[in-house]
Amino acid sequence: MPTKERWIFASMEADVDAVVLMNGTDPNLDNSFFYATGIPNGLFEGCVAIIQPKKTEVLSSELEELSSRTSGVRTTVFDNAEHRHKLLTRRLAGMRRIGVNSREITHANYLRIKKAAGKAKIVDVSEGLETARVVKLPDEISRIKKACAIGSSVGEMIPDLVSEGMTETEAAAELTYKMMRLGATGPAFVAGVAFGSKSAEPHYHPGPRKLKRGQFALFDYGACYGRYVSDITRTFTCGPANKRQREMYDVVLKAQLAALDEVRAGVHGKDVDMAARRVIDGSKFKGLFIHSTGHGIGVTVHDPGALSPARDMVLKENMVLTVEPGVYITGFGGVRIEDDILVTKKGCQILTPCTKEFREI
Amino acid sequence: MPTKERWIFASMEADVDAVVLMNGTDPNLDNSFFYATGIPNGLFEGCVAIIQPKKTEVLSSELEELSSRTSGVRTTVFDNAEHRHKLLTRRLAGMRRIGVNSREITHANYLRIKKAAGKAKIVDVSEGLETARVVKLPDEISRIKKACAIGSSVGEMIPDLVSEGMTETEAAAELTYKMMRLGATGPAFVAGVAFGSKSAEPHYHPGPRKLKRGQFALFDYGACYGRYVSDITRTFTCGPANKRQREMYDVVLKAQLAALDEVRAGVHGKDVDMAARRVIDGSKFKGLFIHSTGHGIGVTVHDPGALSPARDMVLKENMVLTVEPGVYITGFGGVRIEDDILVTKKGCQILTPCTKEFREI
Repeated sequence: MPTKERWIFASMEADVDAVVLMNGTDPNLDNSFFYATGIPNGLFEGCVAIIQPKKTEVLSSELEELSSRTSGVRTTVFDNAEHRHKLLTRRLAGMRRIGVNSREITHANYLRIKKAAGKAKIVDVSEGLETARVVKLPDEISRIKKACAIGSSVGEMIPDLVSEGMTETEAAAELTYKMMRLGATGPAFVAGVAFGSKSAEPHYHPGPRKLKRGQFALFDYGACYGRYVSDITRTFTCGPANKRQREMYDVVLKAQLAALDEVRAGVHGKDVDMAARRVIDGSKFKGLFIHSTGHGIGVTVHDPGALSPARDMVLKENMVLTVEPGVYITGFGGVRIEDDILVTKKGCQILTPCTKEFREI
Repeated sequence: MPTKERWIFASMEADVDAVVLMNGTDPNLDNSFFYATGIPNGLFEGCVAIIQPKKTEVLSSELEELSSRTSGVRTTVFDNAEHRHKLLTRRLAGMRRIGVNSREITHANYLRIKKAAGKAKIVDVSEGLETARVVKLPDEISRIKKACAIGSSVGEMIPDLVSEGMTETEAAAELTYKMMRLGATGPAFVAGVAFGSKSAEPHYHPGPRKLKRGQFALFDYGACYGRYVSDITRTFTCGPANKRQREMYDVVLKAQLAALDEVRAGVHGKDVDMAARRVIDGSKFKGLFIHSTGHGIGVTVHDPGALSPARDMVLKENMVLTVEPGVYITGFGGVRIEDDILVTKKGCQILTPCTKEFREI
């Protein structure tokens, strides 16, 4: 396997001497910093990673020194912002072209790098970094698989963990607890547990709403493991589904299976999206699938990569993506079914194999 | 009380017609977007908030439309990036000066706003936004108090929740579960549970390490409630402390009490830091307090505001800050004691009043 540095440079079309990644204040971190260095712990606020084809160096605050050194990365500690600027200026001296990650660096930090770079040209390499990040290396796949296995095990348990009368926050607590007891460092994101009409809000945060008989119960959650994540959604009804709920579920499941069936290396992401969208738009729920079919996962929940009509890409082996069509009816509720998959030559491996046949709570 | 818009404009020295806040992809969100709009749910990736002295408007993706509208914010939905650009260009037409938040906007989004702004001058108002955010308004204080009360209750329970032989991740699961059962939407951040020598890494993520008799057990955790957070640290030993552990604890507690004693409106943040640092540097643990004494909390765990030798500020009523000195010995372990406080005219209110006298697990 190539080293991470080689992989990154091979993925970039831009010819640069180094890629400089710099974190702002949490959560405005440059996730490519963690991708490129592989450091599993720490926040590294205000820290810098200098990636060159044959070496990586972290300019670390004293606060993160131990996390940096124990991960095996070459580390230099700065005392304060001025010292960091001096070190960075020295490291970049003589370079002609320096890459930055415009999509994840704050504008303020961009200006700091530009200042330290002197006369060198600053080049936006965010597209190249996305190209590198979207195809996962073996160590990344093994961390993601672990995060997915944890999430999938918990998905199997949901009907036992959640019951009528429980609040959304309580249910989110149960899922999160199980994931962490299974070894997750934490939830990958605030678990989106939504009951009743709230299930029509795709990024809803759980609240004090209690689960009532006859309602939808949607669980969008994931585990974090070694800084890599999973992202799963399962939707249930509390008690038997009514006709409309069941129709929604069946259409979404059919759409998800159609999309999964389309996935393999060489296929266009937009065609996978279209496979799902065609099923929904060919049903009575036409137009109610209001987002794209999938996105990459990795060191972030919304990692590079998309199964979308708007942002096309050709699928490659070892991409890890979500496949998650949904139907949303304001005031009534929503259904979404989401799995994480590893793209293979001939199809895909489903990393979250827990039951998705219709289930009641 | 002033409206949020008035408060923001009163806090900025820059004369701008509007402040434009734009989110990247999670986690690269502009948290001032959520501060300014007060929207409790949703990610709002790629969405824009236009803040003017008398009105706020959100340009929302279809995905977040419901979360935006149900929060009562004026909302316009865009179909795609091109449509968003057209809407934004139209809204900014005729303006002379437009504020952006350089510290939390990605460089790529900065370029998008610049393009939409035409001939208007782009002004960095991140300092003004920090000035606004560092002093909390009543609705913010009530959300933070709730997040702190949850965290503090759980702090009281730690010796009952955690026992010898439990792994760091399991212990983190217990704390997170309790917080969520008490109404938190989730943990404010990956709970930093660190046993033994790992307690010397301030931003450590929990792992499979088991708690052994004689070790330090450090818990740095917080709750999220209505998008606002708490941030607490308590340190214990498993079984009786040895002499060195007890000395470390006593010095850190003394340092924390000295800092708390110094807090009141009108005092300099660096003097509060110095009160803690003087105690530690006057002990045998001189030089082992490797971070600043505190930071603001709000919609982010590291919100504007600092008790630091490097970034001074004068404390004002209704600031909410952490006070968290620590001592770290590589290979041995660390002690940190952290509370969240509300600055008052004559002192401060401790929002996380759970026991901090030395306790064993």
